[in-house]
Amino acid sequence: MIKVTVIGLGLIGGSIAKELRTQLNVEVTGIDSNPDHEKKALTLGLIHKTGKTSDDAIASADLIILAIPVNAIEKTLAGFLSEMSAHAVLIDVGSTKEKICKSVSEHPRRGRFVAAHPLAGTEFSGPEAAHKGLFVGKKNIICEKERSDADALALVEKIFESLGMETYYLTAEEHDKHLAYVSHLSHISSFTLSLTVLDMEKDESQIFNLASTGLASTVRLAKSNPATWSPIFEKNSEHLISAIDQYSAHLKSFKKALIEKDGKRLKEMMLSANRIKKILN
Amino acid sequence: MIKVTVIGLGLIGGSIAKELRTQLNVEVTGIDSNPDHEKKALTLGLIHKTGKTSDDAIASADLIILAIPVNAIEKTLAGFLSEMSAHAVLIDVGSTKEKICKSVSEHPRRGRFVAAHPLAGTEFSGPEAAHKGLFVGKKNIICEKERSDADALALVEKIFESLGMETYYLTAEEHDKHLAYVSHLSHISSFTLSLTVLDMEKDESQIFNLASTGLASTVRLAKSNPATWSPIFEKNSEHLISAIDQYSAHLKSFKKALIEKDGKRLKEMMLSANRIKKILN
Repeated sequence: MIKVTVIGLGLIGGSIAKELRTQLNVEVTGIDSNPDHEKKALTLGLIHKTGKTSDDAIASADLIILAIPVNAIEKTLAGFLSEMSAHAVLIDVGSTKEKICKSVSEHPRRGRFVAAHPLAGTEFSGPEAAHKGLFVGKKNIICEKERSDADALALVEKIFESLGMETYYLTAEEHDKHLAYVSHLSHISSFTLSLTVLDMEKDESQIFNLASTGLASTVRLAKSNPATWSPIFEKNSEHLISAIDQYSAHLKSFKKALIEKDGKRLKEMMLSANRIKKILN
Repeated sequence: MIKVTVIGLGLIGGSIAKELRTQLNVEVTGIDSNPDHEKKALTLGLIHKTGKTSDDAIASADLIILAIPVNAIEKTLAGFLSEMSAHAVLIDVGSTKEKICKSVSEHPRRGRFVAAHPLAGTEFSGPEAAHKGLFVGKKNIICEKERSDADALALVEKIFESLGMETYYLTAEEHDKHLAYVSHLSHISSFTLSLTVLDMEKDESQIFNLASTGLASTVRLAKSNPATWSPIFEKNSEHLISAIDQYSAHLKSFKKALIEKDGKRLKEMMLSANRIKKILN
């Protein structure tokens, strides 16, 4: 039986716990800084029991999954690596990777760590959001695979495969740069859209009346959890600021074309943007 | 039997035609400047026959539905009102309303016109996108209802009700202002996001690999048809430019908080944006 300790029982950690319970011969110990989350995770059957980072939940684990906000991962990762058993494997599932990888790059047990990022977040959070099937058909990224021991890497690849995911490999820097564009920026644009719409529409029932499915889709990510996303934005601020600058430049071009009533230019920009179709379909 | 002429056989016009065919004792004549669209609309059974604006498709109609780009509606509306039979009713379904209403505000037959906007657009377009059920559970807006004759208004209300829509009433100015925020701005932000992501990701397969459901949702509207949206943006440019300015100000605040690594401020902004939840749910 494999002893698994999941630290952080939110959407991602809770869902991994639930999947592992049903797929492997495991005993899952869950830890969360919020006692309510621990209780809910037990009630919902995500985990077998709760534990504490100070007790043997770390020392006796064969596999530790770190599914807490990225700033907390960066702070605790090296400590957990030191405290855990020498044969154990530690995975983090944070949405940024550069600073996390850097925090253990000189650690004597670096090889026991696998830096992962399953792309499965939604606008929902907490243990109630956790569910089976969350990962099916989605993508997982592993960074610095050459820094992980072969057996640790193989185990982690097997686990993500069993969740239904396909794994891609990137350097931590590539990961953070690309994610700034394909994930973090879309969150910023969604939050910004929400603030603008709310600002404007003092009479909130008007939004409800006039909101079409288009708004609902574009603004969906604005429902995301600030406790998760604020650290992601901070830890990836450099790439994200570049992305925002580029976004602002395109937005300015739209505004310029509107001011100049330049329908031809507007159409050209939209046609260009339409190319996203063939990529996403 | 009611003689209906639908001008413009895209997503909205085609879907209305199809619904009316199955719900009422009607003969639906379809007209589209694109002969391919006319052929497809016939093949798909959206309409009974095709016609020309120059023949009696206008003069003999009891009901005319104008479902073409908003600039084309503005150009042709007064002419169709003059050419049609005195008892007939003309509806437009354009996404902007001020300039369209203004174009016929002094028309002797203003009473026979009902300015409508069924909020049912998607990122798809053309007769192939038309389908039954598109309007069910969605909202319709009628502007300047007091300028329409009572019988014309009653007929149009009945039609949209039969499509499964709930109708709300606004002035044309209110409509355009609100729609700038709750619809047109979200299209701009989506197009802008798409351009930025495409720009950045020269290797397009990377986008495909790394795109999560979050990006797909936020960028969905960037697939929309430029021929439809360019005129909407132009006709609502004044309100839309204000909306973009406000959006840019919020975006700047995000960037400032990132540069200053002000996590507290980031969280506050996101918490504020989270309020969209209770409105959209």
